[in-house]
Amino acid sequence: MNMCAELSGYKGNVLKFLMKADLQIGDIIRITRNEEVFEGTLMPRYELADDNHIVLKLKNGYNIGIKIHHEMVVMKVGTGAKPTYKLPYQPKEKRELPTVTIISTGGTIASRVDYRTGAVHPALTSDDILTVVPELSKIANIKTKILFSLLSENVHSSHWTKLAQTVAQHILMGVNGVVICHGTDTMAYTSAALSFALQNLPVPVIFVGSQRSSDRPSSDAALNLINAVKAAARTPIAEVMVGMHETSSDTTTVLHRGTRVRKCHTSRRDAFKSINIGPLARIKGEEITLLEDYSRRDPNKQLIINSNFERKVGLLKFYPGLNPNIIDWYMDHGYFGLVLEGTGLGHVGDHLFPQIRKAVEQGLLLGMTSQCVWGRVNMNVYDTGIDLQRIGVIPLKDMLPETALVKMMWIFSQTTDIEEAKKLLMLNIAGEFSERTLYEK
Amino acid sequence: MNMCAELSGYKGNVLKFLMKADLQIGDIIRITRNEEVFEGTLMPRYELADDNHIVLKLKNGYNIGIKIHHEMVVMKVGTGAKPTYKLPYQPKEKRELPTVTIISTGGTIASRVDYRTGAVHPALTSDDILTVVPELSKIANIKTKILFSLLSENVHSSHWTKLAQTVAQHILMGVNGVVICHGTDTMAYTSAALSFALQNLPVPVIFVGSQRSSDRPSSDAALNLINAVKAAARTPIAEVMVGMHETSSDTTTVLHRGTRVRKCHTSRRDAFKSINIGPLARIKGEEITLLEDYSRRDPNKQLIINSNFERKVGLLKFYPGLNPNIIDWYMDHGYFGLVLEGTGLGHVGDHLFPQIRKAVEQGLLLGMTSQCVWGRVNMNVYDTGIDLQRIGVIPLKDMLPETALVKMMWIFSQTTDIEEAKKLLMLNIAGEFSERTLYEK
Repeated sequence: MNMCAELSGYKGNVLKFLMKADLQIGDIIRITRNEEVFEGTLMPRYELADDNHIVLKLKNGYNIGIKIHHEMVVMKVGTGAKPTYKLPYQPKEKRELPTVTIISTGGTIASRVDYRTGAVHPALTSDDILTVVPELSKIANIKTKILFSLLSENVHSSHWTKLAQTVAQHILMGVNGVVICHGTDTMAYTSAALSFALQNLPVPVIFVGSQRSSDRPSSDAALNLINAVKAAARTPIAEVMVGMHETSSDTTTVLHRGTRVRKCHTSRRDAFKSINIGPLARIKGEEITLLEDYSRRDPNKQLIINSNFERKVGLLKFYPGLNPNIIDWYMDHGYFGLVLEGTGLGHVGDHLFPQIRKAVEQGLLLGMTSQCVWGRVNMNVYDTGIDLQRIGVIPLKDMLPETALVKMMWIFSQTTDIEEAKKLLMLNIAGEFSERTLYEK
Repeated sequence: MNMCAELSGYKGNVLKFLMKADLQIGDIIRITRNEEVFEGTLMPRYELADDNHIVLKLKNGYNIGIKIHHEMVVMKVGTGAKPTYKLPYQPKEKRELPTVTIISTGGTIASRVDYRTGAVHPALTSDDILTVVPELSKIANIKTKILFSLLSENVHSSHWTKLAQTVAQHILMGVNGVVICHGTDTMAYTSAALSFALQNLPVPVIFVGSQRSSDRPSSDAALNLINAVKAAARTPIAEVMVGMHETSSDTTTVLHRGTRVRKCHTSRRDAFKSINIGPLARIKGEEITLLEDYSRRDPNKQLIINSNFERKVGLLKFYPGLNPNIIDWYMDHGYFGLVLEGTGLGHVGDHLFPQIRKAVEQGLLLGMTSQCVWGRVNMNVYDTGIDLQRIGVIPLKDMLPETALVKMMWIFSQTTDIEEAKKLLMLNIAGEFSERTLYEK
């Protein structure tokens, strides 16, 4: 990365290319490539950028990346103002529009949308959001709140609590919907957490993230954010949801139920998938299509807040030859519960049975999920499942292991009575399981 | 389940139905339902069967399940011989056919194909196989070997070793291919294990299982077994593979590379998916379509056998708030290595860093994979990844966590030298990773 402020973040070929053309960050330039013409402000790049893309901020507010090419013609058409922190305009509150709060917790969508600082993890300010995605002000009156500036792998249950309380505050203040910018890595854990922490929601709560930072040619940040705000402002679905790209093209987003969603690809824009149910809705342009049953938006609903989580709950993935003594560790450390991520229909090797029995006898709550990801556990088919149930392991239907973990953490913040905990575990609180599998061949 | 031998395994409605019709196991019956007519031998059912299907053995050797219905007409058309253990015919060895060894380790495909005993976990004998699926004798001269009778959740690394050695024996005796019947739960772990244990294979080694027992209407056992034997006998691909249903319909199977496959549904017949690459081949009827690069069959190749596995290697799935002290457990118990199943591009919360550093300093090999399942880790994008690499965690490209675990177990059976281990970990031994991701949007 070059240290020259005028071309901050550019390196290698593209740096040479820009220096040769005598360009600086902030210049308004016109690029002609084959038949196409792009005009916009030359933006800085930062943090491990590749060395063959120029980033332009177009007039419509989007950033695009353009690959340099020897046949490309670049012309400076104006000396633009250096990008500043100032909002280009201050949208006035419009009475006819709904109000949406955007809460920022960090992650790619928040940190990389700010293309100006060159810092690695800046938080998203309200100014930034409307500067970068001016469309938002046509959809809703936007309130913003910077709560954290965290990469999501560093989000813990205490953050879930704080976040749930902040969302609740804004809902109680009467906003029509809440959008939460969150890193994608653990977004599904946090969306599950809020699904349990905030019940009987009067309005939608939409998690949104991006898989590509907005200085990359293929960023999903703008579309995801616009559609999340649309969903918060307009959908009749008052649930905790995740709104992300439906496919790898930049056209539609889908809303996933917060307890049923999983990041299923490290980098694709359509990484998030609803598991064992379909997405709740699809957003394409101005059109929101409802796809599944849901809880209805209703301003008269009384929000129920239960935002604590017990840390002494574990998730243990089974694999061949797993040492059964690892279960002792959880017993020795005063754990309340353990979600097993078994194989197939909900199995673990029988060499674990003695330790599992000991854990159950010590009063730990043990629930079974499947590492298959898709499908449901059925512990009535094979001896292993039947034996495990006799020992006291609870089959957790088609609940995701991650959701089951979060649910158990939530349960044990409310009760330490094992029978009460079992009842809560089997109670469908936030659509986290289905009684039957609808499609199975 | 009724205790009446004549209608062994039937219960509830279907038992009443059969008793009313005065039928016994072994009777040849004709069932007319709407326009359809089924004729065959009434078979016993067992183990948690539902109470509304009759199982018939058709003349072509398949079992089918037929749902009872009040408009259905059932007629006894003959008193068939009671099903016996005898082979109905003894196919002679045919010189022009290739020879395939079928090794049975247990699992649904082996235990439930034997519809006659009523016992829960019988092993598959050579007689059984050819009785149940007589087509096999037209594809190859079949040798069989019952090695274990295990539900696959009880398969350990010592079984992998024994299995690899048995496969090697048969290959060295000159068979044209090997088929391994295995429970589906941990099939992918075992297929990965054999991929490392048996290198430079001269012939194919095909794992096969079934998701539904053959006394169920929708069993996948017959097609999977027939196509596995075809693949072993005829494909030019000399790799360890898994051959299972491609879709939920009973038409094609696909061959997955043994290090790249995962059971992705608890119960669907198309549960097995190739991850991050496509399947190597598709089998439809007599047609085998090759789809990816592969190692070629060649009888002159010298098989390399390296069949041991070290048990002191662990797999640790990260989740928010994971207690870092769990890593101490692995250090205290003399572990050699730990595969981390991180979030997204290969991250864990920074609260784990001190313990991870301690583990690395103690000489443990730590590798990073992703719980996303699809995609590849990239620890050069965010601070977390960069920090983890500095501490000494090795990014494991697009390797599956389960494959990485098995590989590390295999590596530490050969060396305890950490540098040597690292080199082996980064060496592509059985197509377990790709250097680049071909499709990513």
